[in-house]
Amino acid sequence: MTIIDIINKKRLKQELTRQEIAFAVNGYLDSTIKDYQMSSLLMAIVLNGMTDRETIDLTDVMLNSGDIIDLSKVDGIIVDKHSTGGVGDKVTLVLAPLLASLGIKIAKMSGRGLGHTGGTIDKLESIKGFNTKISEEKFIKQVNDINIALVGQTGNLVPADKKIYALRDVTGTVESIPLIASSIMSKKLASGADVIMIDVKVGSGALMKNLEDARKLAQTMVKIGKSYRKPTICLITNMEEPLGFAIGNSLEVKEAIDTLKGNGPSDLLEVVITLSSIIIGALKKIQNSEAQELLFKQLNNGEAYNKFIELVNAQGGDINKLKTTNKSYSIKSKKTGYINHIDALHLGEIAKNLGAGRNTLDDKIDYEVGLVLNKKVGDFVEKDEELLKVYVKEKSANVNEILECFRIDETLEKKPNLILDIIK
Amino acid sequence: MTIIDIINKKRLKQELTRQEIAFAVNGYLDSTIKDYQMSSLLMAIVLNGMTDRETIDLTDVMLNSGDIIDLSKVDGIIVDKHSTGGVGDKVTLVLAPLLASLGIKIAKMSGRGLGHTGGTIDKLESIKGFNTKISEEKFIKQVNDINIALVGQTGNLVPADKKIYALRDVTGTVESIPLIASSIMSKKLASGADVIMIDVKVGSGALMKNLEDARKLAQTMVKIGKSYRKPTICLITNMEEPLGFAIGNSLEVKEAIDTLKGNGPSDLLEVVITLSSIIIGALKKIQNSEAQELLFKQLNNGEAYNKFIELVNAQGGDINKLKTTNKSYSIKSKKTGYINHIDALHLGEIAKNLGAGRNTLDDKIDYEVGLVLNKKVGDFVEKDEELLKVYVKEKSANVNEILECFRIDETLEKKPNLILDIIK
Repeated sequence: MTIIDIINKKRLKQELTRQEIAFAVNGYLDSTIKDYQMSSLLMAIVLNGMTDRETIDLTDVMLNSGDIIDLSKVDGIIVDKHSTGGVGDKVTLVLAPLLASLGIKIAKMSGRGLGHTGGTIDKLESIKGFNTKISEEKFIKQVNDINIALVGQTGNLVPADKKIYALRDVTGTVESIPLIASSIMSKKLASGADVIMIDVKVGSGALMKNLEDARKLAQTMVKIGKSYRKPTICLITNMEEPLGFAIGNSLEVKEAIDTLKGNGPSDLLEVVITLSSIIIGALKKIQNSEAQELLFKQLNNGEAYNKFIELVNAQGGDINKLKTTNKSYSIKSKKTGYINHIDALHLGEIAKNLGAGRNTLDDKIDYEVGLVLNKKVGDFVEKDEELLKVYVKEKSANVNEILECFRIDETLEKKPNLILDIIK
Repeated sequence: MTIIDIINKKRLKQELTRQEIAFAVNGYLDSTIKDYQMSSLLMAIVLNGMTDRETIDLTDVMLNSGDIIDLSKVDGIIVDKHSTGGVGDKVTLVLAPLLASLGIKIAKMSGRGLGHTGGTIDKLESIKGFNTKISEEKFIKQVNDINIALVGQTGNLVPADKKIYALRDVTGTVESIPLIASSIMSKKLASGADVIMIDVKVGSGALMKNLEDARKLAQTMVKIGKSYRKPTICLITNMEEPLGFAIGNSLEVKEAIDTLKGNGPSDLLEVVITLSSIIIGALKKIQNSEAQELLFKQLNNGEAYNKFIELVNAQGGDINKLKTTNKSYSIKSKKTGYINHIDALHLGEIAKNLGAGRNTLDDKIDYEVGLVLNKKVGDFVEKDEELLKVYVKEKSANVNEILECFRIDETLEKKPNLILDIIK
């Protein structure tokens, strides 16, 4: 078996055996297979695809390339949640304590975010003292004690995916459903949860450009999950505009807290409640409407917020010391009309450039900076009315660049649905 | 412009501009574009193809990446000839002096051969003293004086092709009509001839597996040639069995000499006469049948052979000192019947392993070793009758491996045509 034979086979659109996939992935990890050979194979996979069997084998080979977290010492059903990357996406910050408040175990290990704004771990670190570096032993104890722990990745999880992903990023081989599905699922499976929830974003600015591809990705991930007997639920959501109003780490934590107190934006709530009610309905064997009622109760009676505070305290954070700034300025509309589109991706880029996100993993985040929208798609805005506030520290944002993210027309267009499909 | 944008464009099957192709090729040559990015782009080209316009631009960018031989000081029409690689292919050794004996200028610069047996230059070096390293000035003088010079490549011809070809070889990106066509044509165009003849081999053992692909390759090369106003003639020939009887450097020179003296194998003659008569017919403005007659005359009256001796003498060789060996053994048939197939590629591999060819450009060639067939496809063979002779030096060949190259049946199958098409 040689890597050239394997590349040629995939070039000719033939199905690779598990042995061939393992040879390629493990050989790349130990550097006997070179970057230029792996990138050639990856492009052949991007263009000629992989069968479900190949995709499952690729996931398994990557999964077994490093450590796998053993959560067998956690009692009860452990849920993990992932998003393919949205602007203003603070769903985990709300959903995790909400589910934990109902007895579900949330044991979430995350990598750090790249681009847009930070990941969940970065957002939590905008709470002074919040410690995301916890030993595996303490992590398991905390989940058993208070149902929830949100920590940074420890150990050597899925090193093959890490190396392959870095290569895909610089060789134009990112957009491939089998490669994306196996990358996400190998990391989720290595994290040891029983149930996996994935929010697949779709839209021009998202990894999946159209609903059809998003559905295929979701179906592939659900099949991979099934092959491990791990229920996997995918929500396909529209990335038409930022989720909620806030973009930026501490600004998003603040919005998540408001939501946990029963005072959240409706789009954020819709995603949180839809995902949570599926889990709660299935685990408690109740109707979806009943599950939704239960979830709203937890938001309104303070239980969900209390669980969040328990989490913050357990990990050493002080909720009264959120890293915020008062240094802000308003961006005002130059025309009157209906907001028919807000370019989420572009606003995410602007927030990143303010310091809210990273270009490389070595970049430092400014936790206090970001954007807070005053208007969303479907809203009417008067000339000179505030569209959003920019919170800044060292860098500032270009006013015209921000204004270009808003399309304001005389007539109101139909707003597309936020939740486009549920695949499970 | 970034290489990732260019890769993504080709991944999405869009046409690259000349600027984008130049950015990729020149960036790769100066190492600002990495191996792993080029291999990803190459695989995208292999799978998504290139338009004729892209292929011509790629050829031109590669052609201009290094030196271009200036043959303007040669009087008359200069012809170059190339083969995509056949076993026992000694066509150039016969065709070049034959055409030169009729006043056509043959100014051929060749690289060294890899695999099978050596290239034309290697074969000529099996004549003691034959010097293939000649200055460009002397090369041009020799062509003007005696119409013919066959030398090794000097200068820095098409370095981009050299670097890209080495990468294609180890990344499963060899089989692509636009990449093969631009690689061959950039080298031929850099060599400065007026007319280009190409023998495109087709068959399971050849680069082109089927007639349809071979035709496409030929058509593409003819189009590239036309865009430079250089008439390009492609012969598509079947690589069903070795050409002639001999495989191995001095053994092939001996067979070429026999052919130049009017005593050659019919298949070799068929290729030589077909290609030569097209050129002669066109240049002398005579009918093809008349051209063929003229060519046979040159073989029978000794003119073609005399031109070969002139060539050998001009380049310092002594035709009486051909590097030969008497150390040989016979391989005899184990059954009686009709030979319906001879595996040319496999016999070529066996000859290479005897020392007749190279695995890497640093390998030394044993000029005297090789195989000489006693039977060809269509022949009847008795049990214990000789199939071929093996000429050896240090290494020997496995008898069973050789016998497996012959398919001998009770009934005779129809022998496929040797010349399948002419594209010009």
